[in-house]
Parts: sequence; structure tokens; C-alpha cells
Amino acid sequence: MTRLEQQLAFIVELDKLKYILRQSMLMDRSRRENSAEHSWHLAVMAILLAEYASEPVDVTRVMKMLLIHDVVEIDAGDTFAYDTVNIATQNHREQRAADRLFGMLPAEQRDEVRALWEEFEHRATPESKYANALDRLQPLLQNFYSGGQSWRKHGISREQVIDRMRPVEIGIPQVWPTVMKIIDDACAAGYVKTSPSSGNSMPTTSG
Amino acid sequence: MTRLEQQLAFIVELDKLKYILRQSMLMDRSRRENSAEHSWHLAVMAILLAEYASEPVDVTRVMKMLLIHDVVEIDAGDTFAYDTVNIATQNHREQRAADRLFGMLPAEQRDEVRALWEEFEHRATPESKYANALDRLQPLLQNFYSGGQSWRKHGISREQVIDRMRPVEIGIPQVWPTVMKIIDDACAAGYVKTSPSSGNSMPTTSG
Repeated sequence: MTRLEQQLAFIVELDKLKYILRQSMLMDRSRRENSAEHSWHLAVMAILLAEYASEPVDVTRVMKMLLIHDVVEIDAGDTFAYDTVNIATQNHREQRAADRLFGMLPAEQRDEVRALWEEFEHRATPESKYANALDRLQPLLQNFYSGGQSWRKHGISREQVIDRMRPVEIGIPQVWPTVMKIIDDACAAGYVKTSPSSGNSMPTTSG
Repeated sequence: MTRLEQQLAFIVELDKLKYILRQSMLMDRSRRENSAEHSWHLAVMAILLAEYASEPVDVTRVMKMLLIHDVVEIDAGDTFAYDTVNIATQNHREQRAADRLFGMLPAEQRDEVRALWEEFEHRATPESKYANALDRLQPLLQNFYSGGQSWRKHGISREQVIDRMRPVEIGIPQVWPTVMKIIDDACAAGYVKTSPSSGNSMPTTSG
């Protein structure tokens, strides 16, 4: 295969990310969101919300990272955030997927895309912290504005949502109060479960 | 509204681009492609094919341009490439859509996004020529690998496809022979109509 043929074969393979369904619903509740349109949404958010990143970020690298961060799902599937069983095998499945999928590209593009994906996964750089914050904020909006469909279906609790949103506090701390307000509104609307110990990690005797 | 509230309202509005259906089918023929996942596909292509751009390009601006180039369709709808009636009113409808949608953003972000969209539309800069080339190449792949679904449904001819692909010749000339080969293969497979005058703009008497 020529270099261009390799690149086009990978581009054709990418079509399959449009078939990968996430747990989130579109806001009109018509269907589940797929990972390709989710990635698009995140990349636009990266342009618009960069001013809130906790450290200065290279927006170009963030966009690239978000555009490719879910490509491994073509082979590994989408793993639901609250699915503890499949999360245990997720890393292994995704590493194999990365080998096959990114391996379709010419060597230096394979290495660039692989490095972007690994950077996203490790959440160590300012860019990946910002990217991961967006990857949590977007499903929050998706779930809230679809009437909590996915949370209700899976019986998700306030504590689980807050825990899931922690990367927002790290990556875009100025947006955290807004996230907490959305979670409070979701609780008030009955979209997420609340318990008497809501907001505390330990049981309280104060009533 | 605070600045952040304005930005989040626009981000929530963007969900609607996932409902806008294009004429192209996914390659497994399961459904029509939507404009959000199409935009994602293009932005990834922009990263991978930059070496073929006819002039050096700022890939960051190309990615941004492609990520937002179809947002006006939220109000204006997708106009099919070969629909001469609706193309006549397309510009007016899209300008109004740009006013409303980009007008949701804080002023300097509104201006940045509007400028990117106008740049894409005018096809005058190296970045917009490259972006437009990708916006033609991707549907060609989509149509070819879905068995020519959209071409067959609308009775599109070889001449129409070649004419539609001209921005590829301008923006990524090295890819043009591959495009012509795909079109030839599409003709041979009966995906697009061929006529005795194929390849000529004037009738020929040479048989």
C-alpha cells in the first residue's frame, strides 16, 4: 500500500466510530449519542472554554486529543462510566485496539496519534487535564438536558455523579460551581438518587 | 447571563447538529450520516492529510473551520449538493442562521467563529481551500463505500460527481488521481450514471 492508501484506509475505518453508541441520550431524547458526534462536541468545547483551563494549554493538542480519544472504541466498544465489571478489562482491550487501529497509519502518524491517546489517558499534562474535564462536563450536560435518562436508567447516585465529575474540578476549576449547581438541580428534579448521607462520605449523626 | 452561561448555552444548542441528516449514508448503509459526525470525520482528516495541501496550511485553523463549518445547518438545514432549487436560497438562510447561532457567544468568540465560517465559505485562503477539499473527499468515500446509495437514489452522473470534486483538485492536487480512480470504479460498479458523452462537456461525433 502507498502512504496515501494507508491513510485513506484508516479514514474509511474511522466511519465505524459513528456506530459506537454511548449511554448518553441526545438532548431531544430521540436516540443514544454515538462516539463520533460526542468527539466533535468536545473538540468545539475545547475551542470555546480554553480560558477556564487551570493551566495554560495548547488548544491544538487538546483538539487533536479529543478528536481521537475514543477511536479505540471501534474495537473495544464504549465502556459505561459506572460499569465496574467491564472497566477492569477496559485498559487491556483498548491497548489492543490502539495497536491495530493506529497501526494502520504510516509510522510517524501512528506514533503521533498513539502518543496523543496515551497522553489523554494518563491525565498528567495540562492539555490532558483540560481534555478530560471536557470529557466529563459534556455528558453531564447531555444527561441533564435529556431529563437524566441515563442516570435514571442505571440508578446513579449523587455521590457517583460528583465522583465522576472530579476531573472538572481539576481541569476547569472555575466551572466547578456550575457543575455542582447542575447536580443539585438534577437531584431536585429526581434525575439522580439522593440518600440521607448525600454529600458526606461518612454517615452523620447530626440528622 | 454570565459569560460562562452564554458559552454553555451555545454548547447545549450545538447538540442539534447531531439531528441534521445529510444525504450520505454510513458505510454499513444502516442510516444517513449526520452533520456533527461528518464534521468530526473531516477534522481528523485535516490532521492526517495536511501534507497534501497545495500550499502550507495552519492545521489548527483548518480543524476549527471544519468543526464549525456546518453549525449553521442547525437553523438552515443541510442543502443537498445537487439540489439546485434550495442552493439558490442557501446563502440567505445560512447568513441568518449564523447571526442567531454565533450571536449566542460572547462578542469576541462570536467574531472568531463567524470569521472562520466565512473563510470556509469563500474558499480564498490556503486553509479554506484545503478544508473544502476534505469536505468533498469525505462524502466521495462515504458514497463509494456505502455502495453509491446517495448517487443512485438521486441519479447522479459522472460529470456531476467530477464537477463536485473540483475543490479536491485545487486543495489537495496529489489526491486527485485517487479521486478519479474512485469515480471510475463507481461508474464501473453502476453507482453513478455514465453517458456516451462522459468526460466531455460538448456532444461528440466520434462515437
